[in-house]
Amino acid sequence: MEYRVQIVCLDLEGVLIPEMWILVAEATGTEELRLTTRDMADFDALMRHRIDILRRRGITLTDIQEITKDTEPLPGAIDFLHRLRRCGQVAILSDTFVQFVQSVMARFDYPLLLCNELVSDADGSVTDYRLRQTDGKRRAVEAFRDLNLHVQAVGDSFNDISMLRAAHRGFLFRPSTAVSGAHPDLVRTDDHDELLRAIKAVGSEEPATLNSE
Amino acid sequence: MEYRVQIVCLDLEGVLIPEMWILVAEATGTEELRLTTRDMADFDALMRHRIDILRRRGITLTDIQEITKDTEPLPGAIDFLHRLRRCGQVAILSDTFVQFVQSVMARFDYPLLLCNELVSDADGSVTDYRLRQTDGKRRAVEAFRDLNLHVQAVGDSFNDISMLRAAHRGFLFRPSTAVSGAHPDLVRTDDHDELLRAIKAVGSEEPATLNSE
Repeated sequence: MEYRVQIVCLDLEGVLIPEMWILVAEATGTEELRLTTRDMADFDALMRHRIDILRRRGITLTDIQEITKDTEPLPGAIDFLHRLRRCGQVAILSDTFVQFVQSVMARFDYPLLLCNELVSDADGSVTDYRLRQTDGKRRAVEAFRDLNLHVQAVGDSFNDISMLRAAHRGFLFRPSTAVSGAHPDLVRTDDHDELLRAIKAVGSEEPATLNSE
Repeated sequence: MEYRVQIVCLDLEGVLIPEMWILVAEATGTEELRLTTRDMADFDALMRHRIDILRRRGITLTDIQEITKDTEPLPGAIDFLHRLRRCGQVAILSDTFVQFVQSVMARFDYPLLLCNELVSDADGSVTDYRLRQTDGKRRAVEAFRDLNLHVQAVGDSFNDISMLRAAHRGFLFRPSTAVSGAHPDLVRTDDHDELLRAIKAVGSEEPATLNSE
């Protein structure tokens, strides 16, 4: 029998850190940047809209990095991730942009992070964005499964569902009513301690158990 | 164009920490445990031999964990890994056993680790071992490439070659003469600072550059 390593794939915004576009919206007083995929389902259209707002408001990549550099993780998130990494492997799978979260990753001692990128011109104006790959969260989970890993996944929103469904076990963390209502079969939790217990409970049912803390 | 995340896949023993079987051999005065794949090319035969020696000498899993729990990383390895993780993603791909390295991973702030497992009975005697999967290092590199990651890999021995060859760029770190002689086309370095510079130099040629430190 093969040794089945456990890995937990975590969404970043809403699970470990706040929503970064909201931070930028608040710091710059730009209400329009509060729009999310709930308001505009087409992600590319939403991003074009955001980039257009940044340009019109003269908000540069440097401004964004300045705003996001002291991002405070969600209460309890640092401790949660530290305890989780003591007992198994972790990958952060996020649709955020690397420039938003570079700084805050240091607070978490640099877990593995796969995310996307904003593109800027010589003046620092955001001109475009680049996805790592389409449906990147789901494909990462599938790749981990192919490596004989046992995969648990945690997310809060519609863009996490394909990842949660591809994993051996998926958890919703503090989802909106719309998200949890649309996926009543997914276990939902609103608390980091409860989430850690749930992950470890699933892990301990596996032949290759999570290491005890 | 897609955003190409950079990842560096590192062998563990010989690159970041000493050879763990040698530590066990020295701590228990068991010369036979110094045998490596260089002496016995068939890995399964070597492992059966090692397990037989452990049994005959009465060396339990608890003994091994006690011996390895205060493993000192190689000089410079903690700083090297910290600096590497500040500018890109890292995965440790190792043929070692999780019980050997559980403790030392804390010293490195828990990078992603994929490795194998020793199996013990109720008395703590080592009875078997389990691979995560056959040719696991190479397959992990291939999976990362499928996720559109740019992969560099570092190893010191024959069991790393398929991983180094599967990566976009492979480096030998402090290889034996036999290993480097058999693979003269692979860049060889014996120093962590030089290795970091070489990795970053490759990264900076990529469209999606490594972040500056």
